[in-house]
Amino acid sequence: MTKFAIGLDFGTESGRALVVDVATGREVGSAAYRYADGVIDERLPGTTIKLEPDTALQNPNDYIETLKRAVPEALKQGGVRADDVIGIGVDFTACTILPTRTDGTPLCTLKEFKSNPHAWTKLWKHHAAQPEADRINALARERNEPWLAIYGGIVSSEWYHSKTLQILNDAPEIFNAADKIIEASDWLVWQISGALKRNACAAGYKGLWVKGLGFPSNDFLRALDPRLDRLNETKLVGEIVAPGTRVGFLNEQAARWMGLRPGIAVAAPTIDAHAAVPGAGVTEPGRMVLILGTSSCHMILARERHLVPGISGVVEDGILPGLFGYEAGQVGVGDIFEWFVEHGTAARYKHRAKERGISAYQLLEEEAAKLEPGESGLLALDWWNGCRTPLVDANLSGLLIGATLGTRSPDIFRALIEATAFGTQMIIETFERHGVAVNELVACGGLAERNKLLLQIYADVTGREFKEAGSGHTSALGAAMFGAYAAGRAAGGFDSLTDAAKAMAQTKDVTYKPNTQHHATYRKLFAEYRTLHEYFGRGTNDVMKRLREIRNAED
Amino acid sequence: MTKFAIGLDFGTESGRALVVDVATGREVGSAAYRYADGVIDERLPGTTIKLEPDTALQNPNDYIETLKRAVPEALKQGGVRADDVIGIGVDFTACTILPTRTDGTPLCTLKEFKSNPHAWTKLWKHHAAQPEADRINALARERNEPWLAIYGGIVSSEWYHSKTLQILNDAPEIFNAADKIIEASDWLVWQISGALKRNACAAGYKGLWVKGLGFPSNDFLRALDPRLDRLNETKLVGEIVAPGTRVGFLNEQAARWMGLRPGIAVAAPTIDAHAAVPGAGVTEPGRMVLILGTSSCHMILARERHLVPGISGVVEDGILPGLFGYEAGQVGVGDIFEWFVEHGTAARYKHRAKERGISAYQLLEEEAAKLEPGESGLLALDWWNGCRTPLVDANLSGLLIGATLGTRSPDIFRALIEATAFGTQMIIETFERHGVAVNELVACGGLAERNKLLLQIYADVTGREFKEAGSGHTSALGAAMFGAYAAGRAAGGFDSLTDAAKAMAQTKDVTYKPNTQHHATYRKLFAEYRTLHEYFGRGTNDVMKRLREIRNAED
Repeated sequence: MTKFAIGLDFGTESGRALVVDVATGREVGSAAYRYADGVIDERLPGTTIKLEPDTALQNPNDYIETLKRAVPEALKQGGVRADDVIGIGVDFTACTILPTRTDGTPLCTLKEFKSNPHAWTKLWKHHAAQPEADRINALARERNEPWLAIYGGIVSSEWYHSKTLQILNDAPEIFNAADKIIEASDWLVWQISGALKRNACAAGYKGLWVKGLGFPSNDFLRALDPRLDRLNETKLVGEIVAPGTRVGFLNEQAARWMGLRPGIAVAAPTIDAHAAVPGAGVTEPGRMVLILGTSSCHMILARERHLVPGISGVVEDGILPGLFGYEAGQVGVGDIFEWFVEHGTAARYKHRAKERGISAYQLLEEEAAKLEPGESGLLALDWWNGCRTPLVDANLSGLLIGATLGTRSPDIFRALIEATAFGTQMIIETFERHGVAVNELVACGGLAERNKLLLQIYADVTGREFKEAGSGHTSALGAAMFGAYAAGRAAGGFDSLTDAAKAMAQTKDVTYKPNTQHHATYRKLFAEYRTLHEYFGRGTNDVMKRLREIRNAED
Repeated sequence: MTKFAIGLDFGTESGRALVVDVATGREVGSAAYRYADGVIDERLPGTTIKLEPDTALQNPNDYIETLKRAVPEALKQGGVRADDVIGIGVDFTACTILPTRTDGTPLCTLKEFKSNPHAWTKLWKHHAAQPEADRINALARERNEPWLAIYGGIVSSEWYHSKTLQILNDAPEIFNAADKIIEASDWLVWQISGALKRNACAAGYKGLWVKGLGFPSNDFLRALDPRLDRLNETKLVGEIVAPGTRVGFLNEQAARWMGLRPGIAVAAPTIDAHAAVPGAGVTEPGRMVLILGTSSCHMILARERHLVPGISGVVEDGILPGLFGYEAGQVGVGDIFEWFVEHGTAARYKHRAKERGISAYQLLEEEAAKLEPGESGLLALDWWNGCRTPLVDANLSGLLIGATLGTRSPDIFRALIEATAFGTQMIIETFERHGVAVNELVACGGLAERNKLLLQIYADVTGREFKEAGSGHTSALGAAMFGAYAAGRAAGGFDSLTDAAKAMAQTKDVTYKPNTQHHATYRKLFAEYRTLHEYFGRGTNDVMKRLREIRNAED
């Protein structure tokens, strides 16, 4: 009897339901719902209230609509009966938080608060809490807080405490009215299962929660603002559970919304990027998962905690229970290539692509693929958007060296791809130098799907085999594995995530193997990259920062 | 009674005759003749003989045709009678040399030699003699030749001895048959006046001639190749005269060709770029003439010889009699901008320019002019074509730093203009540090005519006033001054070049004055430029050279 698990993937613009055969990983149904209110960054829905710059909100009702619309459609697509669905897993963007009443009612759905932007869900890319982040960083450094090093020394404006402090500062009435301030992922699971828990992934990577230490201490919170006193026991309360842990069972109402059977297992949620790790079939140390997109995430598991400078965080149980999950990242990857296609590519390539009915991006990839490593004579530093790992410095900028009158657009395009590969190599070396082994690479994400040249270059640069995840919805597939794991073997699922991943995840047949000769050339180029990386990135020549200061002085 | 002088300007693709009123500098007639054989770089004219790469030849008959066609037309245009023309001056590309018989007959006009490429004029940009230049440099360094430092330590493949040695190596039969191997400028003057002299400008800047030392010694020549024994007394013989010196009088035949009166003064010729100095009205120390084009030349006069590293040369009497003429240069200026328009500009700017009926270049200039110094956050090293002064290094390459996802084409265009301005500032400082004062700048050349933004940026970067030469044919005007000077006051001309320049040269009314605030910002940016210039240019980080080696290894 075939059993199915559902993975629910809540993204930035839409939510998706994926129905997966737990025995084979076959994706039998997939449907997305595009959020009616999308990313709210100009006006509050149904009002004329203009939002501040860097604000990015969502409407929690869009998550519920995703349940109502995407799940039934995905089930129908796969011809799957409600009785054969054994569990639900959820992945979500993070840190994406909302203030609610004790019963989970979002404040933004209440008449008295709905005109206040701070009553709405703050989306991960809400960037208006930088002053709050600065304050948190200064205080944590001053007090030498034990958790700071675990986050590479810097708390982001995107994270839980920055956003919560912004609510307190800018809308104390909302802060006071909020019984809970909660990750949207945990809220969603709470709504469908009745269980209010906090997943270790979002708590760990975005909420400064460290297993054994807990959240930042009440002392720290009170020093930050006396009104934060007892935050951990009130608005932030809730048992911390590893992603995939069964938190409860589907309630009647949610079962009705989705056309499912009440009582099936509901798993603790996880962050979308992190769900891609089991989704790509990785449940053990040594294999790094790269989620390649506009920016890139690098996820890897290990049995111990190591302090690795410049990573986004290391969280015990954060990706998979029983292991330490490490996250690192590059802030500019796909967006640099898009920038180059739009703003740096000669018109002739645009014309030629148009004539051939392909995109300029495709033509550049095709032409760049004809070049040998080193043939362009170019080298770039991939810092168009700053550097996350290992330098954690948003004020760095892009560099191109080696240009001549013979330089053409495909030369630069390839140099930019190579630069991001060197950036990944730098991250791998940073991990290895601090005790985290990286033996093999598995790629997923939009860029991995779209740019095969990139995967080969990454293999050649890193000297490591590169596999591609089998699913086009790696995160949703990972979430479905959590659902099958939460259901347990007795219900037709699995008693371990490793078993779930073995059964349900595949990589594509293609393996990108490093070409020995190319790797040798790239070793030379990487040595040059490293020298420039250190020279411009570690204070020998801070010209990039000074250029930025001069630029800002001109504003 | 109005008197006129004629300036003959022999360029790469065409020759021009300019008829100038000696009292006022008014240009009454101007006509160009486009060489029938142009630049010969694929096949010898009238044959199927294919030429080697880097070969660039001319047909000396095209020079004679210029006399026959351009001069009569320019006279007609100005309504000028032959009797009112008092003198002729000539400027020419250099080093542009040809082998001839004792009577001046070019070997390429003789049946037995015309199928041999080495019998033809080798144009300045003939670059096939690099092995010969390497040999000359090695030997000169080994022997510590006294003239080497005067040329910034490097002899170019473009120069007289490199080209002559190539004839000897590749076509000894031509070398043997050549009674003279002579600059085309001196050959032309010889043909119209009967006087075989060598102008100090070409001899000094391109022939390693140093006043007081003469040409490289016979010892050196024999060490280079025993067959060069006595070159100085045979093929290279001829009195050295300062440009503008009257070498003789127009002969019957040439007078007939041009429709002029025999017996008028003929001046010793000069190199085209160097003729621009008096052409721009500069006859005294302290005012630098910039000839801004594809590449740029920087000319300045001084009363003494200083050894300035990285300059192209310093020649006593080389530009004007009685003064030391200094030449420095940037190998990439206008060609970098052209490269960027063709190969680095986003399609949207091309489209918008087309819609507005202007060139993409004009649109970029217009948009770049809206930016404040430093606003783009970009900085570039202008080494797309290597660096001439002060580093004399063809293996350096272009660098762009400060790029972000917000970088747009006009930002880069402006950064490239600024980079060439910083390059000029570096040249000015190199001169000043070695004792040659630079107080004011005068611009001429195609780029000065076309790009007013560039002139303002150069003024702002250098902190010096920038004037624009009044003539659109600065070199030809300079040559006409030499003609008027050769004629002398008794014939209606001048007894000094200073008087000639005062009467005949103007600068345009516009003066580009440095904006104090812009200059302050540019001082900061130039400090950054200088740091990168030293870091990448002087051996701290030879990444540019290694990238080139890796590239070459890929070929």
